[in-house]
Amino acid sequence: MEWNIGLQVAQSGDLVQLVGLRHKHFIFRLEPGKVLHTHRGYLRHDDLIGKPWGTQVTSHLGNPFFLLQPSLADLLRELPRTTQILYPKEIGFILVTMGIGPGKHVVEAGTGSGALTAALAYAVGTTGRVVSYEQREEMQALARHNLERLGLAEQVTFKLRNVSEGFDERGVDALFLDVPNPHDYIVQVQAALKPGGYFGSILPTTNQVTQLLLALRRQRFAFIDVMEVLLRYYKPEPTRFRPTDRMVAHTGFLIFARPVLVDDEVSPELLAEAGVATSGGDVAEAMELMQDNGTGE
Amino acid sequence: MEWNIGLQVAQSGDLVQLVGLRHKHFIFRLEPGKVLHTHRGYLRHDDLIGKPWGTQVTSHLGNPFFLLQPSLADLLRELPRTTQILYPKEIGFILVTMGIGPGKHVVEAGTGSGALTAALAYAVGTTGRVVSYEQREEMQALARHNLERLGLAEQVTFKLRNVSEGFDERGVDALFLDVPNPHDYIVQVQAALKPGGYFGSILPTTNQVTQLLLALRRQRFAFIDVMEVLLRYYKPEPTRFRPTDRMVAHTGFLIFARPVLVDDEVSPELLAEAGVATSGGDVAEAMELMQDNGTGE
Amino acid sequence: MEWNIGLQVAQSGDLVQLVGLRHKHFIFRLEPGKVLHTHRGYLRHDDLIGKPWGTQVTSHLGNPFFLLQPSLADLLRELPRTTQILYPKEIGFILVTMGIGPGKHVVEAGTGSGALTAALAYAVGTTGRVVSYEQREEMQALARHNLERLGLAEQVTFKLRNVSEGFDERGVDALFLDVPNPHDYIVQVQAALKPGGYFGSILPTTNQVTQLLLALRRQRFAFIDVMEVLLRYYKPEPTRFRPTDRMVAHTGFLIFARPVLVDDEVSPELLAEAGVATSGGDVAEAMELMQDNGTGE
Amino acid sequence: MEWNIGLQVAQSGDLVQLVGLRHKHFIFRLEPGKVLHTHRGYLRHDDLIGKPWGTQVTSHLGNPFFLLQPSLADLLRELPRTTQILYPKEIGFILVTMGIGPGKHVVEAGTGSGALTAALAYAVGTTGRVVSYEQREEMQALARHNLERLGLAEQVTFKLRNVSEGFDERGVDALFLDVPNPHDYIVQVQAALKPGGYFGSILPTTNQVTQLLLALRRQRFAFIDVMEVLLRYYKPEPTRFRPTDRMVAHTGFLIFARPVLVDDEVSPELLAEAGVATSGGDVAEAMELMQDNGTGE
Repeated sequence: MEWNIGLQVAQSGDLVQLVGLRHKHFIFRLEPGKVLHTHRGYLRHDDLIGKPWGTQVTSHLGNPFFLLQPSLADLLRELPRTTQILYPKEIGFILVTMGIGPGKHVVEAGTGSGALTAALAYAVGTTGRVVSYEQREEMQALARHNLERLGLAEQVTFKLRNVSEGFDERGVDALFLDVPNPHDYIVQVQAALKPGGYFGSILPTTNQVTQLLLALRRQRFAFIDVMEVLLRYYKPEPTRFRPTDRMVAHTGFLIFARPVLVDDEVSPELLAEAGVATSGGDVAEAMELMQDNGTGE
Repeated sequence: MEWNIGLQVAQSGDLVQLVGLRHKHFIFRLEPGKVLHTHRGYLRHDDLIGKPWGTQVTSHLGNPFFLLQPSLADLLRELPRTTQILYPKEIGFILVTMGIGPGKHVVEAGTGSGALTAALAYAVGTTGRVVSYEQREEMQALARHNLERLGLAEQVTFKLRNVSEGFDERGVDALFLDVPNPHDYIVQVQAALKPGGYFGSILPTTNQVTQLLLALRRQRFAFIDVMEVLLRYYKPEPTRFRPTDRMVAHTGFLIFARPVLVDDEVSPELLAEAGVATSGGDVAEAMELMQDNGTGE
Repeated sequence: MEWNIGLQVAQSGDLVQLVGLRHKHFIFRLEPGKVLHTHRGYLRHDDLIGKPWGTQVTSHLGNPFFLLQPSLADLLRELPRTTQILYPKEIGFILVTMGIGPGKHVVEAGTGSGALTAALAYAVGTTGRVVSYEQREEMQALARHNLERLGLAEQVTFKLRNVSEGFDERGVDALFLDVPNPHDYIVQVQAALKPGGYFGSILPTTNQVTQLLLALRRQRFAFIDVMEVLLRYYKPEPTRFRPTDRMVAHTGFLIFARPVLVDDEVSPELLAEAGVATSGGDVAEAMELMQDNGTGE
Repeated sequence: MEWNIGLQVAQSGDLVQLVGLRHKHFIFRLEPGKVLHTHRGYLRHDDLIGKPWGTQVTSHLGNPFFLLQPSLADLLRELPRTTQILYPKEIGFILVTMGIGPGKHVVEAGTGSGALTAALAYAVGTTGRVVSYEQREEMQALARHNLERLGLAEQVTFKLRNVSEGFDERGVDALFLDVPNPHDYIVQVQAALKPGGYFGSILPTTNQVTQLLLALRRQRFAFIDVMEVLLRYYKPEPTRFRPTDRMVAHTGFLIFARPVLVDDEVSPELLAEAGVATSGGDVAEAMELMQDNGTGE
C-alpha cells in the first residue's frame, strides 16, 4: 500500500525535533506566530511550517539545524531527569513485558517528571487510559506541563494523592510503581489490578528489591521476575569498530509479578509452580532469615 | 476513573494464556465448541468462557492451569524461534527508539516467523499499518498463520517479494530489516523512508555490521547508532538474592539510522555533526582500509 | 637472551596436558613405568618422556592427542568443581588485587576442592607460603590429593580446624575466605592480617555481601571494595566474528578490604576517606536500618 | 606456622603506598635521607622508616596519610596510562590463562609504559625472566624508569627493536603482543614460542581482531580463544547496596592461542578439533570472504 506523500512536510501542531551543531536538540510543537529562541539565534515557527522533514533550516543568525520528527526515545531523553531512573532501555522492555499497548488501562505511581507517564500515554494511544498518582504538587504540575508539551496529556488523568490511601481503579491491566518503598503498597496494588494483570516496579538497591519480594510473597503474587537491562553502545566506525569506552552500569532492578486468585481450590503444586508462597509459614520463615541476615548475628 | 469490572472474565474471541505445571504454556483464542488438547488432558473452551481471569481451571484429567491474559512478551515467546534472533529485550527497545506506536506506518523485511511483525502490529494498533516483505512462500504462510492466531493480522499487509526489487511504499515512518545482508538494500530503504524517518536492523556478526555501516555512509544516512542489549535475570528469592547462573550472551547488534536530505545547501559542519560522510572521498578511503583489513596484508 | 632449547621435550616429573578428540583433556605427571588409561586406549608414560612439547602422540588404539604443558587456568579447570565458585576469571583478579606473588605469606579458609589453594600455591612459588584451613576431613584429603597431583603441595600447610577458633598466623600478607558466613570470622581475620594487608572473599548472594559489609565496618576495615567480573567469549571465526550465544551470568561478588590501625591519633577525616566507620554509632544505625529492611516493616 | 611479626614495620628499601585525603596516593621506595613532597606538605623518609604498616603518618603541615604496602594492582594503577589499555581486570586473567608464574620465561612487545611488563616481572619472580621489545627509545626509557621505581627491573631485559626483525629468543613459555598490528608478526611469534606455549594479545577493534584471527589460522596456531573481561563495582553500603552508576565498557578484546607442531603425521581430525585450519584452502577461502565483507560488494 502506497501512502500519501503529503505527510512529508511539517505542519502546524506537529511535534518537531531540531538538531543542530554541537548536538543541541530542541523539541517543541509548531504553532503559527510563535518563535523558538536558541543560543544560536531564533527561528520563526512560520518558517518551519510547510518545510519537508529531514531538511536543513537556519536560525536568523544563519546557524543550521535539521528539521526532524522525534521518536518516543527522543521525547524521553528530552525530559529533565530528576528523581527518575527510567531510561529508554528499561521503558521499551517494561511496555512489552507488561503488555502495555493500544487500548490498555494502566495506573502508575509516582508521576515524577512524567517520563514513564509519557511512554505509557504514547503506547496506550487515544483508546487507552493512564492514571498517574503523585503526592507532591509541584512534581505533578511539572509532569502535567511536560505531557502537554508532548501532546500526550489527553489520555492521562493526574491524581494528587499518597497511594497508601489506595487506588480508585479496579480491574486495571497493568500497574507500575516507581517509588522508593513499593512494598508498602502491595495490598493496594492487588486491589486495583485485575487477576493475572501485570505489576511492575524499578528499584535501585538490592535491599529494596528483597523487601519487595517478601511483600509480593506475602500477598500471593505469582510469576515474580527480577532482572536488569544493560545497554552498550559501539562506535559506528566501519574501519575501527569497537564498543565505546564507558557505559551506564546501573539504573535499577526491574521487578514484575502477576496476582492470581488463590483459594482452597487452587492446587498447591500449581501455586508452587507459579512461585506463590503456599502458606504464611513460608513467609514467616523468610522474614526470620532476613532478620538474621540483616543484623549479622 | 473506575473502570468496568465486567472485563474480568474470559470471553469468546479473547486471547488466552494457560499456565500449568512444569511451566507448560498454551496460548490460543477462545471459540465456543472448540477443544484444547494437552498432554495432561483436554479442556473445552466453553468451560473457560465466562471464568474470571487469574483463576484455576482443570483439564478433564484434573490437571490444574491458571487462566490468564498474555502480554506481548508472552506472545513473542510463544512463536517458534526459527531464524529470528529478536527477543523481547530487543523488541521493546526497537519500538521505543524507532518511534513505533499507535497510528504509525511501518515496513519490515524479511517476515521470518513473524515475531517482530507481531510486535509492530501490536504497537501501531488498528489505526496504524505494517507491511511485511518476505521472499520465501512457506515462511510467509507460517507468519501469516501466527499473526492470525494472535489476532494481529488485520493491520498487516504481507507481500511476497525480494526487496532488491524495492519497496512499494514511500514516506514510511520506520523501516526494519531483519536480513543477513541489509547493506544490499540501503538504496531501496532510503527511497521508502520519509526523510528523518527511522531505519533499524539487527545483525549477528561484526563483519555484517561494518558492511552495513559502510553502506549507510555511502547513502548519507545520519545519526547512526550501534548497540547491544543485555538482560540478566535474578533468582527472586528474598533471603538468597543473586543473579542466575547463566544468561544469553548475544542475540545481535542493533543498528539505527535516519536519512536526511543532503544537497549543496546543507552545511558540511551540520552533516559532520550528524555523522554523515561529507564526500565520496570518506567512503572510498574507508573501503580501501577495509580491504586491507580484510586480507591482513 | 636466548634460552636453552633443551627445555622443549617432556621430562620425567613434568606436568602434562594431553588434549584429544572431542575435547578430552588429561592432566597428569610423567613417571617412568606408569600408564595412562583413556576411553580411547592407553598411553605409556615412557613413550611420552622425551617427546617434544606440542607434538601428536597416540594411544595404543591409534587415537591422537596433542602433548602440551598446562597453564594455571588449565589446571584450575581440571579440578572437580564441587562447592567452589571460583573461576579463572576471578582468580587472576584476586591474585593481582591482593598482591599475591612470589614470596608472599597467604592464608585461606575453607580449602574446598583446592582450586584457589592451587592458584595461591602457584603464585607464591617456592619462596612463599600458603596455609589452608578446612573443617571437613574428606574435603581436606581431596584437596591435598589434588595439590599433590599438581605438584603444588610443597608450599601449602593444611590445617583441619573451624576458623571460629582463630588462625595461628600473625602478620599475614593476604587472607581469603571462601565460606558462606565470612562475617562471623572478621575478628579472627583482623588478628591474623598485618595492618594494611589484604582481605578478600567471594559470596554468591547480596544478602551475604551486606552482612559482610556490616561486619567489616564494625571492625574498622578500610578501603572496602565490592565488584563482579564478567567474561564473554567470542567465536574465533574471522569472517563471522561475534560473541557466543550464552555466558556465565554470575559466580559471586568479590569483596576486598584492608585493616588499618585505628586509635585516637587517627584523624576522623582520614578514616572517613578510607571508608572506615568513625564511630560505633554509624554501625548501630546501619544495623537498625538493615533490620527494618529485613522484615519489610 | 606462625611468621615473624618483625615484618610489620616499614624498612629502608621497601615499596610504600601513602594514602591521604581526597584519595591522594603516592607510591615510592623508602630511602634514608630522602624527602617526599606532596601538595599537603613534605614527609621525611627517615620518619617513615620503622613505623608499623597501617598506621597514620603526617606531613610537616600535619596532613594525615595511611602508611601501607602496595599490591600489584596498586602499582599498576600508579603507572601513567598512555597508550596501553591493560587494566588489572585483564592482567590477572592474562597471567593465569598464559601460565605466567615463578620461574617462567616470557617475552612481550611493545613495552609501552611498562604496565604489563611490571606485572610479568612481578609474577615470574627472581627465578623467571622477562624480555621486553620496544622500538621507541623514549618509551623504553620511561618503562625502564618505571620498572626501576617499582624494583622490578632486575628480571627484565629491555631490547630496542622493531619486532618485524624477529625475536632473539627460542622456546619461550609465553609471548604477549600489545601492538596495533600483531598479525604482521605471527611468523616471528611462532619462531620464538615453544610448541604448546601461550600467545596472547589485546586489541581494541573487531577489525584488528579478525585480521589477527586470519593470521593465526594461516600459521596453524591452535586453541584460539577470544574474550572480553568486564568489571562492575558496587557501592559498599550495607543498607543501600547497588552497582555504581557507570563502568568501563571496553578496554580491548583478549586473544589467546597456542602453536602446535603440524606435519603429515598429525591427524586432520585432531587439527580440526584444536581449531587449526587443515589446509591453505580454508585460509584462502576466508580471505576471499573477508575481502567481500570489507567492501560490501
